[in-house]
Amino acid sequence: MIEALRWVGDRDGHVSMIDQTRLPDVLIDLEITNPDDMIAAIRRLSVRGAPAIGVAAAYGACLATRGLTDAVEVRAALDRELPKIRDSRPTAVNLHHMVDRMRRLIDASDLTGCELRDRLLQEACSIQAEDRELCLMIGRAGAALVKDGGRVLTHCNAGALATGGQGTALSVFYAAKDAGRRFEVVADETRPLLQGARLTAWELQKAEIPVTVICDNAAGHLFARGEIDLVVTGADRVASNGDAANKIGTYTVACLAQLHNVPFYIAAPSTTFDFSLATGAEIPIEERSGDEVWRVSGSGPIPDGVKVRNPAFDVTPASMVKGWITEKGIIQPPFAEIRPEATR
Amino acid sequence: MIEALRWVGDRDGHVSMIDQTRLPDVLIDLEITNPDDMIAAIRRLSVRGAPAIGVAAAYGACLATRGLTDAVEVRAALDRELPKIRDSRPTAVNLHHMVDRMRRLIDASDLTGCELRDRLLQEACSIQAEDRELCLMIGRAGAALVKDGGRVLTHCNAGALATGGQGTALSVFYAAKDAGRRFEVVADETRPLLQGARLTAWELQKAEIPVTVICDNAAGHLFARGEIDLVVTGADRVASNGDAANKIGTYTVACLAQLHNVPFYIAAPSTTFDFSLATGAEIPIEERSGDEVWRVSGSGPIPDGVKVRNPAFDVTPASMVKGWITEKGIIQPPFAEIRPEATR
Repeated sequence: MIEALRWVGDRDGHVSMIDQTRLPDVLIDLEITNPDDMIAAIRRLSVRGAPAIGVAAAYGACLATRGLTDAVEVRAALDRELPKIRDSRPTAVNLHHMVDRMRRLIDASDLTGCELRDRLLQEACSIQAEDRELCLMIGRAGAALVKDGGRVLTHCNAGALATGGQGTALSVFYAAKDAGRRFEVVADETRPLLQGARLTAWELQKAEIPVTVICDNAAGHLFARGEIDLVVTGADRVASNGDAANKIGTYTVACLAQLHNVPFYIAAPSTTFDFSLATGAEIPIEERSGDEVWRVSGSGPIPDGVKVRNPAFDVTPASMVKGWITEKGIIQPPFAEIRPEATR
Repeated sequence: MIEALRWVGDRDGHVSMIDQTRLPDVLIDLEITNPDDMIAAIRRLSVRGAPAIGVAAAYGACLATRGLTDAVEVRAALDRELPKIRDSRPTAVNLHHMVDRMRRLIDASDLTGCELRDRLLQEACSIQAEDRELCLMIGRAGAALVKDGGRVLTHCNAGALATGGQGTALSVFYAAKDAGRRFEVVADETRPLLQGARLTAWELQKAEIPVTVICDNAAGHLFARGEIDLVVTGADRVASNGDAANKIGTYTVACLAQLHNVPFYIAAPSTTFDFSLATGAEIPIEERSGDEVWRVSGSGPIPDGVKVRNPAFDVTPASMVKGWITEKGIIQPPFAEIRPEATR
């Protein structure tokens, strides 16, 4: 299985990550050695997907202390850099959760600079190892949903490239394949940045799962013809009531699934749930530059001066979601299986 | 108002048409002098939109007889070329209607070659003049639907570029603007060939109607936020019961409109109705090359070997359409206002 990112070396090491903006043309690793470069990589989507940017943020904390030996300096560097990492993108909650987890680690300790940094790296590596395990458990929890001969639609990329492990939605497909089921995946191309066409198609092709790419707007046509049996997507943040923010266009797919009585599932680890929010209305939706819409064609298809809107996410209401595929199985609100007891 | 195409000169003249594949980068006219070039222009979408290709087909008949003087040769040329023109694209019915109208003209006559060719050209010019009038009447019929402060969504391009006149859906907007109403249009970019981003945005910008381009998959997000009051699209073929084939993605928009209780209208002249078909299930849906999906990014975003599906149209069931805006007003099935008495 491909690995979106990993730590290389000891506490003075660096992060090696696939530059996802270059896929599928070239498979190139970026070597990230400082938090500013990590933030830039997160912002331009060289690394993306809620769990993957959670892992990237944890490693970013380690990079922030690179070369330091004094505990006071280590803490000062974290005080300075962690808020910037935390704010690099607004919608995915894993970013916040993992930055907060790194901060809690140092708040509670009384170690030397180097000891602290070893602890930070240990914690970041644990975060990735745990995510790897969560992905496998999500796959196992959802595999039975994919029937032999099934035709499953997914949107954007919720695969190995989006996580520290083998994915969320795509992990369900990988597990179904391992269980011997034959099925086809329809991948929405996922405008504007084509994560479905570029990343999901690439991942599934590597895994030898049959995949067909369609333009996002063709999904309705396939639903109308009865060619979609199941929808599974990832999520960037799930609120307490189950409302789920995910890549723009997910809500449109959920509407189609509802109108055509096709089950729609969200696959996400507990780390993507935000129990501090009552509903999806509280999830901040990132608006990205209209240039992303414009640049898809070399010559720029949109006339100069025309306004472009580019919301990066939308919210699918819980009422449209048949189940939330997590490491604890397919669960329902109020998600007692994964809800921290202390919260709310 | 821009003109998608026009005849230049006498019976030995030619067709001048905007090359819509080049918009909005450059505004270039193609000079079409023979039916093969006209068929190629129709196939590659240099001219597109059901009414416009109906007009193009009529002119194509004139081009097929260019330079001929003998009536037998004129008829032979038409026998040879008209079926090819008729089959150049399968979904838009105007193409069939106008080819059949040109054929009926010569079948009934006993004229010399040059007289025949003058009659053909006269008929083709009449077809465009009539379409111009139909567009104006559609605009008048629908203008009151657009409210002051309204936010209207349209898909693909159903404007001057799609007709012999000022459009169908966009004619409604032009008429509303002429009536002094201020409103905004949201234009779906309309993958794969971006007719919304390229053509509708260009037309509306020229007409000084505020327009915002979105990725197709973002429409659901805008509906969910209550930012769309009305949908008007064109059609390529409307069946007897009102089912309407239109650019791929129209059905997805109709589903969103239904779920959010937003009225969805089809704007189309009677020439786009096909009373020989009972329902939309009988409308042939063109499947175009997957290369169209692929080529949007210079470097090709889809991995080699991955299957791509590219249906060019979909069918919106009559049950999702609030009204059909025609030259006879906003009408309902069984469309007695426009149904030829002899049919069915």
